Amino acid sequence: MRLSRRDLMKKAGMAAVGTGFAGLSLSMANKAIGAGQEQQNKIPDLPWPYKKLDPEAVAEAAYEGYYKGACSYGVFEAIVAPLRKEIGFPYTMMPSTLLVVGQGGVADVASLCGSLNGAASAIFLVTGGMDKKLRDASYSIIQDVFLWYEQTALPDYRPKSPKYEIIKSVSGSNLCHVSVSKWCKASKFKSFSKERSERCGWLTAAVAKYTAESLNKYADGAFKMAYPLSAAAKACRSCHDKGSKLENTRAVTDCGGCHFTPSMKQEHPKF
Amino acid sequence: MRLSRRDLMKKAGMAAVGTGFAGLSLSMANKAIGAGQEQQNKIPDLPWPYKKLDPEAVAEAAYEGYYKGACSYGVFEAIVAPLRKEIGFPYTMMPSTLLVVGQGGVADVASLCGSLNGAASAIFLVTGGMDKKLRDASYSIIQDVFLWYEQTALPDYRPKSPKYEIIKSVSGSNLCHVSVSKWCKASKFKSFSKERSERCGWLTAAVAKYTAESLNKYADGAFKMAYPLSAAAKACRSCHDKGSKLENTRAVTDCGGCHFTPSMKQEHPKF
Repeated sequence: MRLSRRDLMKKAGMAAVGTGFAGLSLSMANKAIGAGQEQQNKIPDLPWPYKKLDPEAVAEAAYEGYYKGACSYGVFEAIVAPLRKEIGFPYTMMPSTLLVVGQGGVADVASLCGSLNGAASAIFLVTGGMDKKLRDASYSIIQDVFLWYEQTALPDYRPKSPKYEIIKSVSGSNLCHVSVSKWCKASKFKSFSKERSERCGWLTAAVAKYTAESLNKYADGAFKMAYPLSAAAKACRSCHDKGSKLENTRAVTDCGGCHFTPSMKQEHPKF
Repeated sequence: MRLSRRDLMKKAGMAAVGTGFAGLSLSMANKAIGAGQEQQNKIPDLPWPYKKLDPEAVAEAAYEGYYKGACSYGVFEAIVAPLRKEIGFPYTMMPSTLLVVGQGGVADVASLCGSLNGAASAIFLVTGGMDKKLRDASYSIIQDVFLWYEQTALPDYRPKSPKYEIIKSVSGSNLCHVSVSKWCKASKFKSFSKERSERCGWLTAAVAKYTAESLNKYADGAFKMAYPLSAAAKACRSCHDKGSKLENTRAVTDCGGCHFTPSMKQEHPKF
């Protein structure tokens, strides 16, 4: 089949046949090619579309991803990769390598656990946005993952082909530093050992799995926070958080993860 | 000017004039339009190209951004927006709204300070990558920003049109919780007051400015870490960090930001 001039112009999305083509640039011609393609020249607002995921497949992918791009990338890409495969654009435009930076509590600083940082980004990508209502809904899911993490004996997922067997520990904190220190104390392994690294691979898988389960519930309209703040933390917040007498701090975490020394407990005013 | 069939086909990137057009789809036609456009169908690997920025303009944009999308978005978008304007693709495809999630130490949890989380992502976007050498180089810049943050009286940048005047404080930590608590103690303002929010706006500007200055130095091949770990933290690490006798934790931070109680100091073994 030989295409006519009219056919060619039609294929190029040019409606006004025979008029106004002087100075038409390649980029302009490209912009004119179909609404679908035009959309792909602009990144859409959050939240991006979500399709329910297989949590166990996500966990296995996260474990693999950990050994490629560390904890934060491991969780994030385990959620994003199947969405990229199923949905395509805009996930094809997500530079997931950016999430590598969450490694070891961001750039190996051992601040916020990378698996949680990656989970937060994945959750926000598919549920969040600039709008306050979107932020609030997304933050509820994220806070639940954070509180589950600090209250649960982890890792609670065993990869199908692990390098070592790994024991569980409770972090009581969302911080890499605390989480690693607690596990080292429980396991007797060193903080830069291969076993500790493997533990963080399992943990990445566990966080990715719980995140996928949470997102699946949210997609079904069935999400509710399963891990509220501990009674002890609520007691602290009653004097220190928003709307309290002192209102001199902010936190959604178990305070005992850092305020743990005997003098802290002895010297603190009775309440 | 009226374009000939040959001109139209040339503009559509179709070299083989008069042959093989049967069944040509719009997406195929689009893919054929120039190498530049073809590249835009795939997101490039990190690091993305960087052009030196005006640190003061970045600071002002970050302050504005804080009141739109909070601390993490404020820093990140203040770096990315001018690059999007100057360079275009791939920055046109970066969903910067994703960075909103860093708000208040991620989803208002008060963990890692959002301005630092946003700075880390911006730095990694333009200097990092999956490769270990890229990670190491990028992490040095990020760690320097983190240590500058915790050792410096901040905010050290005053926006041109502030809502309130703001006093400085030293956080001694990279955590939102600690940074906010220290500032509340110094200023006597409450943790959810408008003044505290304004302080975090100034802080967002200050972090963005220091980040842009660091990236400019890196672009000139003149970056070196300006804020090493404190002597006190180095002493702690000598027994607890990688390669030490205990090797039972990890951290690149001033330990005293959390381990601050008298009993901690009294009960710790002499070294």
